[in-house]
Amino acid sequence: MYQHHVQYYETDKMGITHHSNYIRFMEEARLAFFKDIGFDYMEFERLGLVSPVVALNNIRYKKPSTVDDVIAIEVKVKAFNPFVLTLHYVMTLEGTVIFEGDSEHCFLSKEGKMVPITEKTFPALREKLLELVEKE
Amino acid sequence: MYQHHVQYYETDKMGITHHSNYIRFMEEARLAFFKDIGFDYMEFERLGLVSPVVALNNIRYKKPSTVDDVIAIEVKVKAFNPFVLTLHYVMTLEGTVIFEGDSEHCFLSKEGKMVPITEKTFPALREKLLELVEKE
Amino acid sequence: MYQHHVQYYETDKMGITHHSNYIRFMEEARLAFFKDIGFDYMEFERLGLVSPVVALNNIRYKKPSTVDDVIAIEVKVKAFNPFVLTLHYVMTLEGTVIFEGDSEHCFLSKEGKMVPITEKTFPALREKLLELVEKE
Amino acid sequence: MYQHHVQYYETDKMGITHHSNYIRFMEEARLAFFKDIGFDYMEFERLGLVSPVVALNNIRYKKPSTVDDVIAIEVKVKAFNPFVLTLHYVMTLEGTVIFEGDSEHCFLSKEGKMVPITEKTFPALREKLLELVEKE
Repeated sequence: MYQHHVQYYETDKMGITHHSNYIRFMEEARLAFFKDIGFDYMEFERLGLVSPVVALNNIRYKKPSTVDDVIAIEVKVKAFNPFVLTLHYVMTLEGTVIFEGDSEHCFLSKEGKMVPITEKTFPALREKLLELVEKE
Repeated sequence: MYQHHVQYYETDKMGITHHSNYIRFMEEARLAFFKDIGFDYMEFERLGLVSPVVALNNIRYKKPSTVDDVIAIEVKVKAFNPFVLTLHYVMTLEGTVIFEGDSEHCFLSKEGKMVPITEKTFPALREKLLELVEKE
Repeated sequence: MYQHHVQYYETDKMGITHHSNYIRFMEEARLAFFKDIGFDYMEFERLGLVSPVVALNNIRYKKPSTVDDVIAIEVKVKAFNPFVLTLHYVMTLEGTVIFEGDSEHCFLSKEGKMVPITEKTFPALREKLLELVEKE
Repeated sequence: MYQHHVQYYETDKMGITHHSNYIRFMEEARLAFFKDIGFDYMEFERLGLVSPVVALNNIRYKKPSTVDDVIAIEVKVKAFNPFVLTLHYVMTLEGTVIFEGDSEHCFLSKEGKMVPITEKTFPALREKLLELVEKE
């Protein structure tokens, strides 16, 4: 499972990890997740496809973390259609859930046009995401 | 209205403001909002009260922004009870809405105990927040 | 003079502005400085010229700052030749110097080739920078 | 050797790691270095000792890096006296040096008073740092 080692510069004057950084940890875990399932996101970018975050939902900060903590991050496919991918994240610290949330992504060409993920455009990615969403 | 001037270091390799930074702009606008309604958040911290973000909801990235853009940020009180304050944010760029979202906050003592905002604990803040939530 | 209003997310668990953020404030002040002298850096980027930081020297953290502080930042041209521009920064908080440092920049085409700032390539920028360096 | 895996959010619109982030990577590598030599910096903070950065010198950005790059960071003790510790950092990417620089640190009590590192105050730390500086 992806792990993030919290850094000193990620803390704030409350002495805890600043809440904005968890959105960055979601991104870290997401890129590792894509690599794990065989789709290197950076390779997609080189092919001219980007997948920006279009929404964040149900972001819950349950417990704080701080420098030197190692946060384990699980990423699951919550929903998928050709236009929107929804991922769900659970972050734990020594077995305790400290954060949960969802991100939604669309798929765009470099020119900013919608690129649906279909059997014609990206069949292997589509199949893999459908397989993962069914597992849930 | 609060304005954020987007910086070069806030962009990413897509050439746009990195999505995590909008969570930071929400915080900037929130502290300015508290000051505007007569409650300096930093003064509250000196009194031993902190108000961490416990949730983010309905975060919508509608349009990108980039370095040198000036984003106008409106903050409204969406809901308030003694234990939870919900704020709603609308960010616009030259009149176009580019981002919307909500943050939820609780109130804690430095020791981490819940401090309800009541007539007894913080009457002026309570009154002001109730007044603002009714406006909507 | 350029001013930076320190944000909560720029503090760390020592309760002060994280030292890495001053490097970002230097960038903020630098872009404002270029605009002030009539050269919008973003316009240069659109023309295909970038000016990355190649060195930082004599960075001195003299006093801390924290959230809500307003830091005034002065930028001066310390040295200039067709290949390297050296800028000097002094940051003050209520009149007290809290930070000083230098940055060095080269000029590159988008393809990464050196673009000297000469009478032939960018005469107005060259003249302005020479004028400013002589003032010191 | 300490390694930093560059993240998407650490890039900027030039498509490369933003220069301010290397200052953060220096901090990451420094905390790992202290742990390696048997002195957990976070333990020192719990004892009431902080070691802020007071200066950065000879910071050289030699080659860019970007998302997904793995940067190896070597930390050496360049100089040490009871009041100032100077560390030297070399960052390499696939064997090529991409960054070099120094940081200077003092030692302070939580109240902000200088705490010299002597045989009386922190004998083991002093001995270890002297041993490491002699190696160079």
